[in-house]
Amino acid sequence: MFRLQTIGRGSLCSGILEQCSSEFTTKTLRHLSSVWKPSRDIEVEGVKSLSTAEASAVMPKDENGRIRDRILTLETMSPLVKAVEYAVRGPIVIKAGEIERELNQGIKKPFTEVIRANIGDAHAMGQKPITFLRQVVALSTFPELLESPSFPEDAKKRARRILQDCGGNSLGSYSASQGLEIIRENIATYLEHRDDGIPADPNNICLTTGASDGIMSILKLLVTGDGLSRTGVMIPIPQYPLYSAAISELGAVQVNYYLDEDNCWALDVSELHRALSSARKYCTPKVLCIINPGNPTGQVQSRKCIEDVIHFAYEEKLFILSDEVYQDNIYSPDCQFHSFKKVLFEMGPEYFNNVELASFHSTSKGYMGECGFRGGFMEVVNMDPDVRTQMIKLLSVRLCPPVSGQVAMDVVVNPPQPGEQSFEQFAKEKKTVLRELARKARLTEEILNSVPGIKCNPVQGAMYAFPRIFIPPKAIQEAKALGMAPDMFYCLQLLEETGICVVPGSGFGQKNGTYHFRMTILPPVEKLKLLLTKVKEFHINFLQQYASSESTSR
Amino acid sequence: MFRLQTIGRGSLCSGILEQCSSEFTTKTLRHLSSVWKPSRDIEVEGVKSLSTAEASAVMPKDENGRIRDRILTLETMSPLVKAVEYAVRGPIVIKAGEIERELNQGIKKPFTEVIRANIGDAHAMGQKPITFLRQVVALSTFPELLESPSFPEDAKKRARRILQDCGGNSLGSYSASQGLEIIRENIATYLEHRDDGIPADPNNICLTTGASDGIMSILKLLVTGDGLSRTGVMIPIPQYPLYSAAISELGAVQVNYYLDEDNCWALDVSELHRALSSARKYCTPKVLCIINPGNPTGQVQSRKCIEDVIHFAYEEKLFILSDEVYQDNIYSPDCQFHSFKKVLFEMGPEYFNNVELASFHSTSKGYMGECGFRGGFMEVVNMDPDVRTQMIKLLSVRLCPPVSGQVAMDVVVNPPQPGEQSFEQFAKEKKTVLRELARKARLTEEILNSVPGIKCNPVQGAMYAFPRIFIPPKAIQEAKALGMAPDMFYCLQLLEETGICVVPGSGFGQKNGTYHFRMTILPPVEKLKLLLTKVKEFHINFLQQYASSESTSR
Repeated sequence: MFRLQTIGRGSLCSGILEQCSSEFTTKTLRHLSSVWKPSRDIEVEGVKSLSTAEASAVMPKDENGRIRDRILTLETMSPLVKAVEYAVRGPIVIKAGEIERELNQGIKKPFTEVIRANIGDAHAMGQKPITFLRQVVALSTFPELLESPSFPEDAKKRARRILQDCGGNSLGSYSASQGLEIIRENIATYLEHRDDGIPADPNNICLTTGASDGIMSILKLLVTGDGLSRTGVMIPIPQYPLYSAAISELGAVQVNYYLDEDNCWALDVSELHRALSSARKYCTPKVLCIINPGNPTGQVQSRKCIEDVIHFAYEEKLFILSDEVYQDNIYSPDCQFHSFKKVLFEMGPEYFNNVELASFHSTSKGYMGECGFRGGFMEVVNMDPDVRTQMIKLLSVRLCPPVSGQVAMDVVVNPPQPGEQSFEQFAKEKKTVLRELARKARLTEEILNSVPGIKCNPVQGAMYAFPRIFIPPKAIQEAKALGMAPDMFYCLQLLEETGICVVPGSGFGQKNGTYHFRMTILPPVEKLKLLLTKVKEFHINFLQQYASSESTSR
Repeated sequence: MFRLQTIGRGSLCSGILEQCSSEFTTKTLRHLSSVWKPSRDIEVEGVKSLSTAEASAVMPKDENGRIRDRILTLETMSPLVKAVEYAVRGPIVIKAGEIERELNQGIKKPFTEVIRANIGDAHAMGQKPITFLRQVVALSTFPELLESPSFPEDAKKRARRILQDCGGNSLGSYSASQGLEIIRENIATYLEHRDDGIPADPNNICLTTGASDGIMSILKLLVTGDGLSRTGVMIPIPQYPLYSAAISELGAVQVNYYLDEDNCWALDVSELHRALSSARKYCTPKVLCIINPGNPTGQVQSRKCIEDVIHFAYEEKLFILSDEVYQDNIYSPDCQFHSFKKVLFEMGPEYFNNVELASFHSTSKGYMGECGFRGGFMEVVNMDPDVRTQMIKLLSVRLCPPVSGQVAMDVVVNPPQPGEQSFEQFAKEKKTVLRELARKARLTEEILNSVPGIKCNPVQGAMYAFPRIFIPPKAIQEAKALGMAPDMFYCLQLLEETGICVVPGSGFGQKNGTYHFRMTILPPVEKLKLLLTKVKEFHINFLQQYASSESTSR
């Protein structure tokens, strides 16, 4: 006889119960014995298999009835995947989910809701979608709506044009692996306009499943080698952890260059030189990743800085990856977005004929914040045509990026024009979102800097603050005793005491001995104020709680 | 002075022209010299950089003004990526695109259109979307439509329920990395119903970006090692080339087991034993991939066969990947779909407590054919909980699958029920598509088998025929002289003479000395008849053209 094993939500029994009536035991057992029969004596090439009875007789079982070790375990799984870390959805966020469930179960907490400031997810924080974008996606999804008077003509025009480019005029057919041709052409036009007429070629543009997918694809092409010849990938510290995760997964070498916190997270080329020369002792640096505007650091690079970086990459023969997904998120009136491509071309032929560059954009950020559609694109400059063919081959294995995400991307690069029916509403919605974000950027910086023991650089762009937090030695000791990064220890307490979910700086990287957290500026103004006030109170209490003689000075 | 380089679509000049007026040359040059200035003498840590003038003076240029070799070339790129092959979108399909462009330019051909039978892309072949599915996606995309009387209540109900589960009630927010909880619950319910009450746990289910993404993710977890300990992945031959591509990309070892063409592409366990024992000499086989119903081979596995395969995996300690994306595409009245999970559970506790399994489904195939939405899911059975955590961490780096694809998947697992407003139309549309496919499956098999030198197994399921074609020795010689696989040679001629695009069997793998092609059964009946008649004529001419004494017998 056997015990019925509990599996998943129910048990085999409960599963079979759905078929059985009241007198289930006999029926169940009859059913089981009948369905087992076929496995009793399978003849495989004359190899008589064990019957279940024999098996259970000879083999030792664990409490789950498991006869033997699993094939796929922490010990046997890919060490590359095991090494991957992604703090933005890491332990602190899992904990936040648990707390939310407890709140829903009515368990009392010192707060009534979890405020998720851990991820740049604008709509989840209440930002409304851009009407025109959703109209075009809905029209392309359900073309019967093209007959509806309640949709504007300019939205219908775009939907019709996109559907013309879709196989069978359906969003349900695969697009080309690089994306729909009409959308790649619209992207090229958008880039030429953005970059003051510097030409863009649709053949150098690929739609992607969010920017992450494009970054991963380019790194896959670049990463090779073992030992000293292993590809080194230079990334900023602090970084967006997609980069460290991709580097782990591909078995490349992470080469850190540190942004200058005391200088508003500026990128200093001398630091690039330092990082490069030390890295050359143990790997072969081939790639330089730039995030501008910065994530998590929110700085916007000056044109001069970009030129210096390009010159450095040119001299040191590095392939540039420029992550420009926040190109529309510029808040500081003294800052302006300069694309790496534009600066590269303005530096003259020696540069624009030789420097290899891939740049990335996305529908997830900007003013539209359409993360769920997983839209994005990349443009490559000076990529060897044979390699481009290899890249498209690689993309083709995944068939194509989600077509509705491509449509969302199209609206971003091809918005309503003056004179078109939707122009004013679109412009108004876009302006409102960006103005609100600029206001929240200032608000966040101001309130955080009013807290003793917190110092926050200006949030010039992107959608995050990355304040430096003073953690008293006593708290550091306690964290280390728990085998925890001090800022993780801090963020967990913040979460448990206030319901505020932010990500420890250790998840992004930081200078040794400094501690930070990343928070988004996305919550609605009132909620953001509440959040910042709670952070302030928490931090002051935290300092007192762990106060010791030296903890009063920084 | 320098020549203006042609880049991409235009030239830097043409780019800048957009800013300049008639007297462009002087202006352009003035502009360029001005924008170059900043790069003339950048001081980097005392390292005086070359001015562009100095650079052009000292460095030799190629005709593109390139001063030096590229960083990323065919020689330096990842050999893993270079080894990837994906015939379904390979050279033959690129050629088809070129021919289409020539037709559009009015260039005369012996045909007026290219018929793309190379890829399972139902909507591109004219299949209409399932109305209810598109209604739910459109309603979730543009919730204002929830007020519209022209949408049925049951569609609105599903859209509302999904939006409740979305952050900010918006499809534009990220979902959990495993997908929306409500959809995972609906999938679990669907699986329990499909598998006669065998329980399914939403925590073991992950939404994916099409099935390909899920298969890739599981393989990433499984693949490890070097030399003899390198992970071997057993795949059927013929296979769907995603598998060989993923194996190349991950640096695993492809272990071929051959399906029995003379026995309707059946899977014979003795062949699994042969493949396994020979593979153990040079790698560590850990994974067994099954495609049922078969792609490209169209067979449907019997319950007995599945049981034998599971028993084999159990005895040999192999992790099973069961690709079941065609589970709704069963045409032969003598065939029935049996999920690996159901058979596994019916084999009793020794099996369902121990055999590790991941199975895959998709919105791209079935009766809905929604390829462009990139929807899919995977279910894991007996996955070590720690490994499952690692899997979710890996998925979280990509943030989430496209949410509209998740919504499409939800409709597939949660269709209108009897009594609901949309039930009849949905049932009718579904039935019509599947009946048409069954008819086309028969038609394809019959006509192909009427051609001398072509032999086609019954298309029991999926959406492809994989006929064996006799290629005369003279044609084989000619192909080899051109360094081309004989069936590629055949398919290219077919394409150039008839406009029909099918994929050579060599792209899927086949027994040495046998030749095949894969064609979809998706074109509308009349077009399919035309296609098959053209193939018939072409093949007869091909046999005559390359006739030689021995070429009359097979």
